[in-house]
Amino acid sequence: MGVPEISISRLSLYLRGLKAVSEGGNQTISSYQLAKETGMKPDKVRKDLSYFGQFGRRGIGYSVNELTDTITRILGLNKQWNVAICGAGNLGSALATYKGFAKMGFKTAAVFDNDPKKIGKSWGKAKIFHPKQIPRVTKQKKIEIAIIAVPADAAQSVIDKFIRAGIKAILNFAPAKLSLPKDVKSRNVDLSMELVNLTHFLSLTE
Amino acid sequence: MGVPEISISRLSLYLRGLKAVSEGGNQTISSYQLAKETGMKPDKVRKDLSYFGQFGRRGIGYSVNELTDTITRILGLNKQWNVAICGAGNLGSALATYKGFAKMGFKTAAVFDNDPKKIGKSWGKAKIFHPKQIPRVTKQKKIEIAIIAVPADAAQSVIDKFIRAGIKAILNFAPAKLSLPKDVKSRNVDLSMELVNLTHFLSLTE
Repeated sequence: MGVPEISISRLSLYLRGLKAVSEGGNQTISSYQLAKETGMKPDKVRKDLSYFGQFGRRGIGYSVNELTDTITRILGLNKQWNVAICGAGNLGSALATYKGFAKMGFKTAAVFDNDPKKIGKSWGKAKIFHPKQIPRVTKQKKIEIAIIAVPADAAQSVIDKFIRAGIKAILNFAPAKLSLPKDVKSRNVDLSMELVNLTHFLSLTE
Repeated sequence: MGVPEISISRLSLYLRGLKAVSEGGNQTISSYQLAKETGMKPDKVRKDLSYFGQFGRRGIGYSVNELTDTITRILGLNKQWNVAICGAGNLGSALATYKGFAKMGFKTAAVFDNDPKKIGKSWGKAKIFHPKQIPRVTKQKKIEIAIIAVPADAAQSVIDKFIRAGIKAILNFAPAKLSLPKDVKSRNVDLSMELVNLTHFLSLTE
């Protein structure tokens, strides 16, 4: 749609900032205040918001409620999303208990793992299934987003199952090169990619 | 230093690609092959590598060993890094057992948590300390990188302790606005920022 992904990402920061401001009782906010609240620069805030229309009023700023509602709607956070977590290891467990998920309207509807000791157990209200059940369970539980927390060499195989089941959105933690159809959106969280910026920086200053 | 952070991040992908190629027995690789191996475009690969000097030879490509060594050195991965994990919850536990850390030469030298039931126990070879011990333990264990896996409202307080102890590099998982000195480098992993790109995308196609 022409909107940079990083601008969409930052909308979630603005939403967090707006909530903090709203709890403080403020009804309007300037781009300068919203920038301060989120650690951004004011012109970046204005630019990011401008992709989605004209919100603010010159000299008054943004209505906190109005902007909150608009961003919530743009981000699709005005509904509940059914999520599957694939991989019931430490990372999967950390994700399943991540408090931010519930705040964003995410519901862990199913967990998948190939460990016979885990299959059949429950994490909260979500049951653990064998990955071969992905096609059936994904449809039955109306899962819309798959979170991949399996080892790198297992990632493509489970992702293929989710895609065949109709999943269009994947959050991938496996450090693997993936092959995905063009109509499927994925975001990759690769800790190595984050960490090398730190080690490179430390090496420069040593 | 003028090199975009995203280019530095991608060097870790190229390193992974080079390792796969090396295990396959190849001694040279073209930018085209390295692009294919990592899911990048060839001109992006050449551009990223060009920030760090002239490696390839026209018509021959890159020496796999030479490029591996160079990237390893640029990223500071030719040494061991002592890391502290702050927050011994599910996320901290997932990070402590993350296999990629060891591969990158990371050693979890200490864990911090304020839960009396956890303090004094060990995760592998790393002992769990109270956060008030951060100044002493950081120096004693020669910790260079702090990984923050505590709730948002506790993040700034523990980060301040690490900074006072001389830490210059922070990987932060807490969804909080942080205030850091200019000579401290941080990378933030914010799952909300990843997920809203997916929910926004799904909302558009509904």
